[in-house]
Amino acid sequence: MATRKRTTRPPRARLRKADRALIVIGGHEDRDGDRVILREVARRVGSGVLVVATVASEVPDELWERYERCFRSLGVAHLRRLDVASREEATNPAKVETLRGAAGVFFTGGDQLRITSQIGDTPVYQGIRAIYENGGVICGTSAGASVMTETMLVSGNGDESHRVGGALRLAPGLGLLPDVIVDQHFAERGRLGRLLGAVAQNPRIVGIGIDEDTAIVVERGRFRVIGSGAVYVVDGRHTTYSNLTSEEPDRAMSVFDVKLHVLSQGDAFDLRTRRPKGFPSATAERVSRRESRTPTAV
Amino acid sequence: MATRKRTTRPPRARLRKADRALIVIGGHEDRDGDRVILREVARRVGSGVLVVATVASEVPDELWERYERCFRSLGVAHLRRLDVASREEATNPAKVETLRGAAGVFFTGGDQLRITSQIGDTPVYQGIRAIYENGGVICGTSAGASVMTETMLVSGNGDESHRVGGALRLAPGLGLLPDVIVDQHFAERGRLGRLLGAVAQNPRIVGIGIDEDTAIVVERGRFRVIGSGAVYVVDGRHTTYSNLTSEEPDRAMSVFDVKLHVLSQGDAFDLRTRRPKGFPSATAERVSRRESRTPTAV
Repeated sequence: MATRKRTTRPPRARLRKADRALIVIGGHEDRDGDRVILREVARRVGSGVLVVATVASEVPDELWERYERCFRSLGVAHLRRLDVASREEATNPAKVETLRGAAGVFFTGGDQLRITSQIGDTPVYQGIRAIYENGGVICGTSAGASVMTETMLVSGNGDESHRVGGALRLAPGLGLLPDVIVDQHFAERGRLGRLLGAVAQNPRIVGIGIDEDTAIVVERGRFRVIGSGAVYVVDGRHTTYSNLTSEEPDRAMSVFDVKLHVLSQGDAFDLRTRRPKGFPSATAERVSRRESRTPTAV
Repeated sequence: MATRKRTTRPPRARLRKADRALIVIGGHEDRDGDRVILREVARRVGSGVLVVATVASEVPDELWERYERCFRSLGVAHLRRLDVASREEATNPAKVETLRGAAGVFFTGGDQLRITSQIGDTPVYQGIRAIYENGGVICGTSAGASVMTETMLVSGNGDESHRVGGALRLAPGLGLLPDVIVDQHFAERGRLGRLLGAVAQNPRIVGIGIDEDTAIVVERGRFRVIGSGAVYVVDGRHTTYSNLTSEEPDRAMSVFDVKLHVLSQGDAFDLRTRRPKGFPSATAERVSRRESRTPTAV
């Protein structure tokens, strides 16, 4: 296929800074069916270059093959692979060159600390940041989702409530998405407790729990939900009480007056005002369209 | 031991109607260590009779032996066993007699529908109700917890978010605890989605998710939390939007502006005002006591 020959230099995507976006995916996104989420990634990359970053994974070859096949079938002609096995590699000019002129980066799953510890503050990171600043789309699934934020969630218990001195592990993330903390595989792994634990520590941060095969598309200070699951927004701004400063580490955490929103496909959330907006259902849309055609119908 | 001879008629407990209470346990309560929850059951029963109802279980002998041993070691001298294998048995005068004059009933785990379908609206149920109305304590763990409410949660998905046409199964419960729906094994089985699904259907109902080894003690319109885990209160009164009437059954549920409280041991919740109250920590109490002794201390 012509797209595989790469005899011509891939087109430099025409990016507009205002179009920059993040696609933050809760893991296990559909790769065989409708592929709503990966299709959105492909649509945004268009004829530009998409870099698949397998940095997080211990099986990078397998993931690269899987995503290459999928993105090609979705019409992405220009794919490049970025793997970084050490911080030294993250300063390698050839690696940095991989990113040059790209329209998007897609972080696979794995271990979020592999991403941040290996590329944090390196030329490779600067290259990714530049793509975003110039109007590109940065995407990540599972571990690749967690790294998007300033403070990221690394690990914590998924099968019990958070404890005052609980095993919640946070670390500095890539910092592309401020004032937010993301957790993935959310309903599937019962992660409400650990997300609440993170938010209660400083309710300045909005907690966003993303189900599998579900994503938020963040642009211009708001996000929209796509995919088959739900997105949970944990807003602790108006919490009135917590026992986090208790001296009993094994004590279960208390926190009162948390606001919780559950969003599904098409719903939106304004990160500045912290307000959700419901998507008119397909039915409502159909009715609405029909009514606009036949305004006298009852 | 004297307590096992039962040569004397067990004392009729002196119950005061205002002292009636429910102890609703999220399952897997500690039976070997501090046994905070079962100790509270024992304390309330005192020298009265405690009926262990194994109705929910398919292994009633095993559960009876386990709880009999445990409650005896906690000082409950007068234990009786109530098993009901059919609705006919639930009208048997001998079964009804088991309940007469008892100070408390303890429902074991199992299947909540076995309890309600077999004793609902029978003389055995009337006997249990009478114990409660007269000031006794009705306790239940796991399935035995779910049956306390007017509408009870029977089953639903624990590993994904609720869908508009989701497999949430509700049924009429024993009706001892109005305006509430209870889910158990809450954090351990990731049941936020199904509890939200139940509450969103009618936010008149407060959703209460109880962790394992955790209980709420309900009396006089409020409850207090005991045990090692957390209790989640899902208050949907001020929800502004949901998509539950969407015609797409597979669509994930959206619901905005749910209020969520997480309570731990000692915290209280007023079911009438729907307000939580934090428990002063042991540290705070110690400081407070010390300060009251030495009022001039800094």
